[in-house]
Amino acid sequence: MVHQQHLRFSTNGRGTYNISQQISDVIEKSNIQTGICQIFIQHTSASLILCENADPTVRTDLDAFMKRLVPDGDSLFKHKDEGPDDMPAHIRTVLTESSLSIPVHKGKASLGIWQGIYLWEHRTSSFKRNLSVTIIGE
Amino acid sequence: MVHQQHLRFSTNGRGTYNISQQISDVIEKSNIQTGICQIFIQHTSASLILCENADPTVRTDLDAFMKRLVPDGDSLFKHKDEGPDDMPAHIRTVLTESSLSIPVHKGKASLGIWQGIYLWEHRTSSFKRNLSVTIIGE
Amino acid sequence: MVHQQHLRFSTNGRGTYNISQQISDVIEKSNIQTGICQIFIQHTSASLILCENADPTVRTDLDAFMKRLVPDGDSLFKHKDEGPDDMPAHIRTVLTESSLSIPVHKGKASLGIWQGIYLWEHRTSSFKRNLSVTIIGE
Repeated sequence: MVHQQHLRFSTNGRGTYNISQQISDVIEKSNIQTGICQIFIQHTSASLILCENADPTVRTDLDAFMKRLVPDGDSLFKHKDEGPDDMPAHIRTVLTESSLSIPVHKGKASLGIWQGIYLWEHRTSSFKRNLSVTIIGE
Repeated sequence: MVHQQHLRFSTNGRGTYNISQQISDVIEKSNIQTGICQIFIQHTSASLILCENADPTVRTDLDAFMKRLVPDGDSLFKHKDEGPDDMPAHIRTVLTESSLSIPVHKGKASLGIWQGIYLWEHRTSSFKRNLSVTIIGE
Repeated sequence: MVHQQHLRFSTNGRGTYNISQQISDVIEKSNIQTGICQIFIQHTSASLILCENADPTVRTDLDAFMKRLVPDGDSLFKHKDEGPDDMPAHIRTVLTESSLSIPVHKGKASLGIWQGIYLWEHRTSSFKRNLSVTIIGE
């Protein structure tokens, strides 16, 4: 069995957005009990991560780390058509994930209790982000 | 066909643990000849990587690199509930993989000859780590 | 339905190689309309990324960033059997992807308009790189 669905999220500046519930809803709708759920983001300046879901400081520390690792406006970068956060957003995407693959077990996302699914917006302004969710199994 | 199995590993401090044989055993048990094998770790402070399997120095160099990139006890981090290796473990996980996807060909993991599958424990103490392996194919 | 095919690419030194067309050809040949396409590279010193496909400066900036992050010949590294780019190539691979997973929708790779599929050669000399493409769906 294959189930595929498209989702659209509005982001409101750089940071992480918890999309675990929306992914769970798609898995439930699929009626697939055992298999693989693939989540894919169709952009090169926003990405997907699995991250600790209890203390929000984890995600702000993560963003602070990335800001230090890939500084906005770094003179190393020649590509800056869309501003100082343009090239850093591409690099942050490459260093994280465009696609997450999660097991489906007993009809649910088989995540650890501390794992949340996050869309990470790397641009500093607002965007519409298109995702697709594909579930294969039985 | 879908085959799903759960594995549990004991880690004994930060470092890489070769789990290639255990994954091969699950693939063999599945009887699937052609398809995809997904390995998933249900934690946010340990991760999965494919890495060179011949010279153990590659993995110690890799850990040394990560230690320099994401220093334990870095004053940038506010989240330190579980000690100086807490937030670095989350970041190291995000920079690597929570899920590996490997092709199955002729009933075996279709890895390159130098590729090994490793669980990377990022915490400095001992843990039990839960993995799931899902194989889809025919 | 499962379709699996092997591809071989020649690289000519460090840099990114657009393989989007070759992947599209495999998907078309599979006749699968809806599913998941997994691309896997059987090496530990070359990797796969999805990256912005319009301005080539994005990929040269990306390589410049990686060169600064993981310097060739860094005295931190003990593993240098094959030269100053040996250990950096392994680290660059671990920080990016050995496997890409892309949704298949209406018989095509469901990429965003700015997303291209790239093989990233991390060694400074020429190599033959083996990839496998596995598509599962209906």
